[in-house]
Amino acid sequence: MDDRAEPPAYRRESAPTDERIDDLLGRMTLPEKAGQVTGTWAGTLRETHDLDDVKAAIDDRHLGFAAPFGWGGALATTPEDAVAAVEELQTYAREETRLGVPLLFSVDAVHGHAYVSGATVFPNGLGAAATWDPEGIEAAAAVTAREVRATGAHQNYGPTVDVGRDPRWGRVFETFGESPHLVGELAAAKVRGYQGEGPGDSAAPSDPDRVVATAKHFPAYGEPERGEDASPVDVSEYKLRNTFVRPFERALDAGVASVMPSYNSIDGEPSHGSAAFLDRLLREELGFEGHVVSDWNGIRHLHEDHRTAADHADGVRQAREAGVDVASVGHAPHADRVVELVEAGDLDEATLDRAVRRVLRLKFGLGLFDEGPDEIVDEDEAAETLGAPAHRERARETARDSMTLLENDGLLPLAGDEDVFVGGPNADDLVDQLGGWSVARDEGLPGKTIREAVADATAGEVTYAPGTTLDEAADVDAAVEAAREADVAVLALGEGWYIHEFGPEAQAGTETGNWPTRGDLRLPEAQRELVRRVHETGTPVVGVLVTGRPLIVDWMAEHVPAILMAYFPGTEGGVAVAETLFGENDPSGRLPISVPRDEGDLPQHHDALAHPTPIGADEHPDSYDPLFEFGHGLSYADFETADLSASVEPATAGSPASDDEGVGDAAPADRTVRVSVAVSNVGDRAGTETVQVYARQRHASRVRPVRSLVGFERVTLDPGETGRVEVSVPAERLGFYKPREGHVVESGIYRIDVDGASTTLDL
Amino acid sequence: MDDRAEPPAYRRESAPTDERIDDLLGRMTLPEKAGQVTGTWAGTLRETHDLDDVKAAIDDRHLGFAAPFGWGGALATTPEDAVAAVEELQTYAREETRLGVPLLFSVDAVHGHAYVSGATVFPNGLGAAATWDPEGIEAAAAVTAREVRATGAHQNYGPTVDVGRDPRWGRVFETFGESPHLVGELAAAKVRGYQGEGPGDSAAPSDPDRVVATAKHFPAYGEPERGEDASPVDVSEYKLRNTFVRPFERALDAGVASVMPSYNSIDGEPSHGSAAFLDRLLREELGFEGHVVSDWNGIRHLHEDHRTAADHADGVRQAREAGVDVASVGHAPHADRVVELVEAGDLDEATLDRAVRRVLRLKFGLGLFDEGPDEIVDEDEAAETLGAPAHRERARETARDSMTLLENDGLLPLAGDEDVFVGGPNADDLVDQLGGWSVARDEGLPGKTIREAVADATAGEVTYAPGTTLDEAADVDAAVEAAREADVAVLALGEGWYIHEFGPEAQAGTETGNWPTRGDLRLPEAQRELVRRVHETGTPVVGVLVTGRPLIVDWMAEHVPAILMAYFPGTEGGVAVAETLFGENDPSGRLPISVPRDEGDLPQHHDALAHPTPIGADEHPDSYDPLFEFGHGLSYADFETADLSASVEPATAGSPASDDEGVGDAAPADRTVRVSVAVSNVGDRAGTETVQVYARQRHASRVRPVRSLVGFERVTLDPGETGRVEVSVPAERLGFYKPREGHVVESGIYRIDVDGASTTLDL
Repeated sequence: MDDRAEPPAYRRESAPTDERIDDLLGRMTLPEKAGQVTGTWAGTLRETHDLDDVKAAIDDRHLGFAAPFGWGGALATTPEDAVAAVEELQTYAREETRLGVPLLFSVDAVHGHAYVSGATVFPNGLGAAATWDPEGIEAAAAVTAREVRATGAHQNYGPTVDVGRDPRWGRVFETFGESPHLVGELAAAKVRGYQGEGPGDSAAPSDPDRVVATAKHFPAYGEPERGEDASPVDVSEYKLRNTFVRPFERALDAGVASVMPSYNSIDGEPSHGSAAFLDRLLREELGFEGHVVSDWNGIRHLHEDHRTAADHADGVRQAREAGVDVASVGHAPHADRVVELVEAGDLDEATLDRAVRRVLRLKFGLGLFDEGPDEIVDEDEAAETLGAPAHRERARETARDSMTLLENDGLLPLAGDEDVFVGGPNADDLVDQLGGWSVARDEGLPGKTIREAVADATAGEVTYAPGTTLDEAADVDAAVEAAREADVAVLALGEGWYIHEFGPEAQAGTETGNWPTRGDLRLPEAQRELVRRVHETGTPVVGVLVTGRPLIVDWMAEHVPAILMAYFPGTEGGVAVAETLFGENDPSGRLPISVPRDEGDLPQHHDALAHPTPIGADEHPDSYDPLFEFGHGLSYADFETADLSASVEPATAGSPASDDEGVGDAAPADRTVRVSVAVSNVGDRAGTETVQVYARQRHASRVRPVRSLVGFERVTLDPGETGRVEVSVPAERLGFYKPREGHVVESGIYRIDVDGASTTLDL
Repeated sequence: MDDRAEPPAYRRESAPTDERIDDLLGRMTLPEKAGQVTGTWAGTLRETHDLDDVKAAIDDRHLGFAAPFGWGGALATTPEDAVAAVEELQTYAREETRLGVPLLFSVDAVHGHAYVSGATVFPNGLGAAATWDPEGIEAAAAVTAREVRATGAHQNYGPTVDVGRDPRWGRVFETFGESPHLVGELAAAKVRGYQGEGPGDSAAPSDPDRVVATAKHFPAYGEPERGEDASPVDVSEYKLRNTFVRPFERALDAGVASVMPSYNSIDGEPSHGSAAFLDRLLREELGFEGHVVSDWNGIRHLHEDHRTAADHADGVRQAREAGVDVASVGHAPHADRVVELVEAGDLDEATLDRAVRRVLRLKFGLGLFDEGPDEIVDEDEAAETLGAPAHRERARETARDSMTLLENDGLLPLAGDEDVFVGGPNADDLVDQLGGWSVARDEGLPGKTIREAVADATAGEVTYAPGTTLDEAADVDAAVEAAREADVAVLALGEGWYIHEFGPEAQAGTETGNWPTRGDLRLPEAQRELVRRVHETGTPVVGVLVTGRPLIVDWMAEHVPAILMAYFPGTEGGVAVAETLFGENDPSGRLPISVPRDEGDLPQHHDALAHPTPIGADEHPDSYDPLFEFGHGLSYADFETADLSASVEPATAGSPASDDEGVGDAAPADRTVRVSVAVSNVGDRAGTETVQVYARQRHASRVRPVRSLVGFERVTLDPGETGRVEVSVPAERLGFYKPREGHVVESGIYRIDVDGASTTLDL
């Protein structure tokens, strides 16, 4: 660059952003534009990739994005390596390229910055959802944002806004579960946590401790056929909109700056090539103004798998015309195709320019052009930030609040002086506690295993023998004998770490790799055998489930005295489990997803649509009959609810109802329903209850769910204490999307249920 | 009536039909119109209903329809009772009502006139479909039409045009299986068989040996959630049209005169109240001109279950405005609601008139107004017709052709001199062979059981012990010991008779009633135990599956030498099974539905849409991996196919392609693909092969199935014989319905597969 001249407009921090964008765009060649909307995977920046390769890609293809950490997966990047690499690459982009456009670094910090050693690792999606705590989720996301930013990255590929409707699906652990309302509330909270309280217009966060959030995977991904990842989500428009798109609307309301399409096809259209979904629905109808970033290989799938494109170039054209702005990692040749398409007249340069503008707006908004050379990233700050005590305490709090007690005949909480046998394959493995989207090896991970934390928690003796690996028996006899001598047996059972490693073993596509689809949702036989044999000793068994999905545990439910669902609780999960077993923590988690009795009963959701009684049956069958219901979870306290009322009041200013789109019947939609209920702790311990408000419209113009969650509120009460819990339900939440008409809230009678009590509401 | 006057126009056979309709309609009061489009269930006309009740309903509500036989279910009506009752009711309607409008009698003769004793009973839907023989299906339907008409009824509630996509569903046995093409071909054949070769314009059959056919259940019913009957079929428009509506189009092309909506909702709309499905899709787009008849209670479901209507009257209004013309059985109060609605101005009388006109046109078309008093029905003719030898031979032929040999290590065919042990709960029960939509008690049913037919077929000794009931062990030891002494053990296993009886035991909703949903598709444990123990004796086992759905028989497939799928084969099924076991009949049945390995693998269809390879996997996974594939079935002959070619030629006049609607790309759609393959019988026995033609479009504008059936042809060959089989595939079959655009046939490359050989076609 020529330092003697007046800096160009795009370099002047004082210039209006639009002017800076116009100026820079006007200077860019076609290849520079094409590269600016293309990313590369930079591996772990340690072993598998050489930074010179990335620099060469910057030289050759003018790339604008790089994904520097993440799911190489096997190896943790150290903060020092991360910082050094980001600094080196960013400095190269700024100083060694013609226009000096900074790179944007994106990461998959899905439940913490979990590919960087020492970072804080939170419970994965299902566990986080079990807290039913938007504030906690927001705080956790803010921690992640802070840690990501401390290592120099800017965009996070989260939150997952998918509604998880099939436990066979290998990615259900990443979701917030089955309820569109719960998913929407928590996804919005996560957006706020990542981006901060922004202007709500999809702009980049100005707070240097925040990151760009990415709502994924639009418009629907969570109900693949056979539970097989990326298979079609073949749902009606009614279900598409009311179940899957609804939570994305909440994420958009929260100002999410980026959206990622889903791998699958819907209605025969792959999302990555669909103007119907990305342009007409997302932008025109829902008003999204941020950028759309492709999922890994999502564009290549168009010609290779979906076969809706003739070749790579045709797929690139389709994706760009549909509205994909950025081709993310793994796609450097994408830029070449874009250049060729524009030169051949097969892609309008204005379409490319639109994408480039969105990217540049993000980079200007993040202040990347205005950073000094020393402001890119700071090694000391990174070291201090990652895994900071307050951060880990937040992770522990989330893990505590996620603990979901499925069964308890009074065995729990333990007194603290028991001799405890700890067994099972998940009792002493910190990596398996992480569950995926995380490093795959314990390279000095912080945190404690369940075994270690239980040993800290009891004054009695603790013995340990795994008894099985995840799949195979491993000296079951020793485990059984040790269990026989103990006062209580804690068996940590479940699944292993998800998400494959790259490399030959991963390519084999084993059960533990590649988001395994599990058609059999029972524990592996070896683990079931372990439970049976330990149970037969007469030592009471607590089953602790470390798992990314609901497992079918009907035998355990019938035979063992206590089952605690721990999900994949993260590095702090071992402590959270022990605190719960010993009563230091009241289990306040509630299931965000139904636990089925049998694979043959799927799908099982609390909000199934009403349907006719089979001929000859007297009553409507209870189609929804899972082993454990959505919303289930026991406390050590005992709660009673009374005095339920629901009343309609006008919306207050700024209520979510008032800025909702296309309400069919303005009068009821503007209102707020105030649900009020008295909750008493009639037990002898303090505890936390989650008041869950379900609604059903008595008669509607379309078939409605038998019941669906519309509001919730956590309340903590001392023994003998009664609290009145008020839940505000904007009336628009009682409405639904009606194909060809939009969101409607119909006048009529609604039934409101809380904890078995029921009232009606005339809206 | 006044005999002295000139008869009114509607009574004059010589008057044009339109004039007769106008005349009669003009004379009808509002209550007479309302009754004319309402039916009643007349029970079995023997025990549960008194004819005086029906006459009272005719007096009070002027009913136009009655369902005189059928699924009281438990009891067979004798032909004499049937004829007497029909004659009495029809005479009453003609002579004792003001206008003398004859009744139309409708029946559920789903696989033969199976509620009337002595009638011919064919294999149920899946078994019939396994023949892959449209001509045979047409001939069978013609037999049923003849027998129905001989007892005085005019309309049959069939064919079932549902595509059966979930083996858990209790009604899958009624379907022609999973392939839209196979279902469409066979449903059209059945329409032709019922109605005869009519004008193809939904008019009533003029042939007095034919009946009005009813295509059901429109637009989609066969993929209910959880396999639970009448639960939502929540599919995309793409799937709705290409999978479910497509075969209805074939039935419409064949001139079906009536259509019945489905119980379930789709896209949040119950079919019975949906103008989108019944008016815009069925009538406006598909051009249907016949009458729409409600399913049992289908209108009441609108307010009672779907809750899309506020009360019964509102549901009646919705259904009529949507296009339901006739409220079928069980709905006499329907007529009152219609009168009230019209009087209150809530239902346009023109809507009612339109329905009345359709009904009257049907009755005039059937000649009901012009029958003499002695022409209504004839007892002698009924006695001669029902179960006539030629009819039963047709049923036996269909049963023979349905036999599907799933596995055979060389044990079959038997030589004919073996000592045979026959066991299992389905070996000696004629009612269970019927499978449903049939009488529930063996009151002199014709036909033989498997046990009886095997005894006829071998010169050796036959021993018999059931070993189990359907669900429980019953002296297994005796069965095992008898099996030990035999040369071969034939175990007839599976399910019992479906469709409940009315009465207290049915209301309990037991597994054997109410189209049971089976989340567990394995044989009951007692039956599995029987197979295991007999297998352990060393006597080779032939498993014969008598079942209405694919059962998971993985253990048997691995251990026993031969498995024969018999479906519910009807009264002649015992003989067909024995003939097959002993080689008198070559098993030429081919599976019309996939047999899954496990409930957790559902759905499993041969025509699944393409989808992306999971990350980390090298190759596209074979998502379709059932225990036995769609189209599978062994012959006693050995076939080889060679010299596959596919070429495009112009459509000939009258080809199905030329009268198809809305073809997007006229050029390829008009053409016919000629697939030619040489099939050789390289075995030492004569046998029948079914050439199955599958196609895949290489690249398309929407995601297409990995392969789907587009044509088939049966060919019978002597040992050493080679035949060239030509299958004409109208190019429009290679196309698909594209939402918002209609049916398109896209230019491009298609892969054509026959029996593992593959060629390409440039269309």
